[in-house]
Amino acid sequence: MRIGELSRRSGVSVPTIKYYVRERMLPEGERTAANQVSYSEEHLRRLRLIRGLIDVGGLPVSTVREVLAEIDRPDPSTRRAVITAHKGLAVPTGGSTDRLREDAWHVVESVFAERGWTHDEDNPGVPALVEVLARLRLLDQDGFVDRIGRYAEAAELIAEVDIDFLSSRADATDAVESAVLGTVLGDVAIAALRRIAQQEMFNRSSRKDC
Amino acid sequence: MRIGELSRRSGVSVPTIKYYVRERMLPEGERTAANQVSYSEEHLRRLRLIRGLIDVGGLPVSTVREVLAEIDRPDPSTRRAVITAHKGLAVPTGGSTDRLREDAWHVVESVFAERGWTHDEDNPGVPALVEVLARLRLLDQDGFVDRIGRYAEAAELIAEVDIDFLSSRADATDAVESAVLGTVLGDVAIAALRRIAQQEMFNRSSRKDC
Repeated sequence: MRIGELSRRSGVSVPTIKYYVRERMLPEGERTAANQVSYSEEHLRRLRLIRGLIDVGGLPVSTVREVLAEIDRPDPSTRRAVITAHKGLAVPTGGSTDRLREDAWHVVESVFAERGWTHDEDNPGVPALVEVLARLRLLDQDGFVDRIGRYAEAAELIAEVDIDFLSSRADATDAVESAVLGTVLGDVAIAALRRIAQQEMFNRSSRKDC
Repeated sequence: MRIGELSRRSGVSVPTIKYYVRERMLPEGERTAANQVSYSEEHLRRLRLIRGLIDVGGLPVSTVREVLAEIDRPDPSTRRAVITAHKGLAVPTGGSTDRLREDAWHVVESVFAERGWTHDEDNPGVPALVEVLARLRLLDQDGFVDRIGRYAEAAELIAEVDIDFLSSRADATDAVESAVLGTVLGDVAIAALRRIAQQEMFNRSSRKDC
């Protein structure tokens, strides 16, 4: 197909498609004549992957570029892809103080101990969690700390589902793409389900009060 | 304190503080002399709230403005605040087709039926979940659908923690602020815990394979 059709079918503008090609996020089309470049269903699929990660997952373009590079490696690794997908969780530090982060770190350690989790410095979840707890402490939301242990229990349920699913994928490239999409779009699905469930629990407890 | 000290202590630049005042997200300081305006600890606290929602929660400024208006109402309502905080979950639609969204909607309905959840059209979680499922179907990630029921179970656990906590807050203004922070920063905490738990489950299943 021509670039116009690719744009129409993907919903991505022609200048943006050209930008993705320049950034090597999308392979070049095949030159079929002096002034004509042809794109395939694979190009369409790749554009849908990029837009899903950006529009729905909220990843910045720079992280999408890294994730795609991982998917395109000749030796794809699910483990590495999950780690790359995890980078999408960038939480800026600096809004709280060292002292508050140190306190938050002790909370995180006690949650790890309670669940028997091994400590891994490289997981971007750790600094993100520390920062969230430090910021909440700064805003006098000390009660939030008590919820973390129970959130961790729910997170373990979710992670079991995730890993069960990935273990069932035979093809490595498929597994890498599924890992990335499941992590990034999965976060949005979980946040959506949490809102729906919150409202449900809220309605149930209001009915009890009547 | 003067605006310079407010800027230093909050980590927010002077032009940004002035912007928040113009946008009525931050009350004006008290004019103590012709050329001097004084800010209080309440201003500092409000700036920390704004930055927490933007930096950590990833909310756009326009949503933060709506959330603050809810917090500042003379008759604060936790229910309304939760609904406002939910607006932060904006997922653009249009990247998939009507047909795919219709299929996704059937999946969502079956999850609701399974959990005995009441259907509420106004909850922004519903269109967000439908869009995530439609996008994943577009990318041939049909297996993801099977995970939704188990994610919903975990989301219910999380929502129970959230509602338990909110019910324990006596002061309405406090409860509103806690609801907003718990929802927005809570999402980030859960995403962080999910990543940590994924890695833990991944390591455990790799050890089993040896």
